[in-house]
Amino acid sequence: ASSRRYSSGTAPLIRQLFESESCTYTYLLADTETREAVLVDPVLETIDRDLKLLQELELNLKVAVNTHCHADHITSTGLMKRRLFGLKSAISKFSGASADILLSEGDKIAFGKHYLSVRETPGHTDGCVTLVLGDESMAFTGDCLLIRGCGRTDFQQGCAKRLFNSVHQKIFTLPEHCLVYPAHDYKGQTVSTVGEERKFNPRLTKSLEEFVNIMNNLNLAKPAKIDIAVPANLVCGLHEV
Amino acid sequence: ASSRRYSSGTAPLIRQLFESESCTYTYLLADTETREAVLVDPVLETIDRDLKLLQELELNLKVAVNTHCHADHITSTGLMKRRLFGLKSAISKFSGASADILLSEGDKIAFGKHYLSVRETPGHTDGCVTLVLGDESMAFTGDCLLIRGCGRTDFQQGCAKRLFNSVHQKIFTLPEHCLVYPAHDYKGQTVSTVGEERKFNPRLTKSLEEFVNIMNNLNLAKPAKIDIAVPANLVCGLHEV
Ligand SMILES: [Fe+2]
Ligand SMILES: [Fe+2]
Repeated sequence: ASSRRYSSGTAPLIRQLFESESCTYTYLLADTETREAVLVDPVLETIDRDLKLLQELELNLKVAVNTHCHADHITSTGLMKRRLFGLKSAISKFSGASADILLSEGDKIAFGKHYLSVRETPGHTDGCVTLVLGDESMAFTGDCLLIRGCGRTDFQQGCAKRLFNSVHQKIFTLPEHCLVYPAHDYKGQTVSTVGEERKFNPRLTKSLEEFVNIMNNLNLAKPAKIDIAVPANLVCGLHEV
Repeated sequence: ASSRRYSSGTAPLIRQLFESESCTYTYLLADTETREAVLVDPVLETIDRDLKLLQELELNLKVAVNTHCHADHITSTGLMKRRLFGLKSAISKFSGASADILLSEGDKIAFGKHYLSVRETPGHTDGCVTLVLGDESMAFTGDCLLIRGCGRTDFQQGCAKRLFNSVHQKIFTLPEHCLVYPAHDYKGQTVSTVGEERKFNPRLTKSLEEFVNIMNNLNLAKPAKIDIAVPANLVCGLHEV
């Protein structure tokens, strides 16, 4: 009884999982009654861990969705479709990638009585989406908004101005206490809130001009895996696995 | 309003933080109204990240507690006491380490209207404790119970039989939905539940005899930092920092 709020069936089950080579977070969301589940940004290297957890928790994975076409790791959605009958892959229609479901603004990805709502948040890539839980208690922001950071905008159709507008119009307008779950973190941080990022994000608290200037002068190295990862992710990781 | 359950002030704020070299999880817990906070197992390497977060969230850190005398990393509690006026360190009275508060079975570590209750769970070391939130919705199990694993028992007074009994008597008796937050994870898992570990922990689902046999034949290498970390942690990390 004392743990009622974790077992009432009103809040979805959520599991955050980490892939340490690319520092990617994968999220498992499920309805605790119907057992229907959604997986966000699963990574090829951790497919066995993720499939085992689904099996142990007796979940029925309906949709595996990528927040965008990743350049730093290969998605496991393609291979997972081969292992799980009926699983559908999903990605933004502006990603250029093929998938069973091509997502647009306002689309809903349902799992049991819950759903994730799609907000288009381009800027890191043209096909970046932020997935918001129906009650707006949490948002999966991909590489658009990171904890005290944001995704780079210097390749893959990146555009600092678009990213700035996406964050301000589509993410910072969510409730203050909405949890921010990003696709990556490199400092061991696991979660933030919209209120915190509005106040403390060192880049997104700047003016548009200052932000564009910061982003255009990061001088980052090219991701090690980009030439393998992007073509593979354009076909859901099913290139030659 | 839609995010009421995250801002109602009835549930404590909780932040899981990761230190990637030792794969240690640090936990920040706070009362969202009084802003009083407790930090569990903070690591020397990430002290600046953790202090910055405390400051941004406007929290008043009362107690920094270690679940045991760690052998794989140096705690930041000693240095943190020098930086935060009034902060108290805490550790089990059976740890052999010095601290402001020496913990025993049933002790409560209060922060605002919440508290962590101490359960002695020796076996990995003599001075291991599991910290249980007042409503038994979550437990911080240190190196006693890990996700689908457990701490080693081959040094630092380790005893497989004691660990087995600690888990079965003090942790598996918690509610099924009680969240299990360990001190380490090496596979990118962040949380489990008592019910899951009762069913799927590959070691703790075995008989006592089989468990002891497994633990006595792991043949693990000595932790790289043990000869530095243990003496340093016996004085809260304040050896020569
Ligand atoms: Fe990306
Ligand atoms: Fe340990």
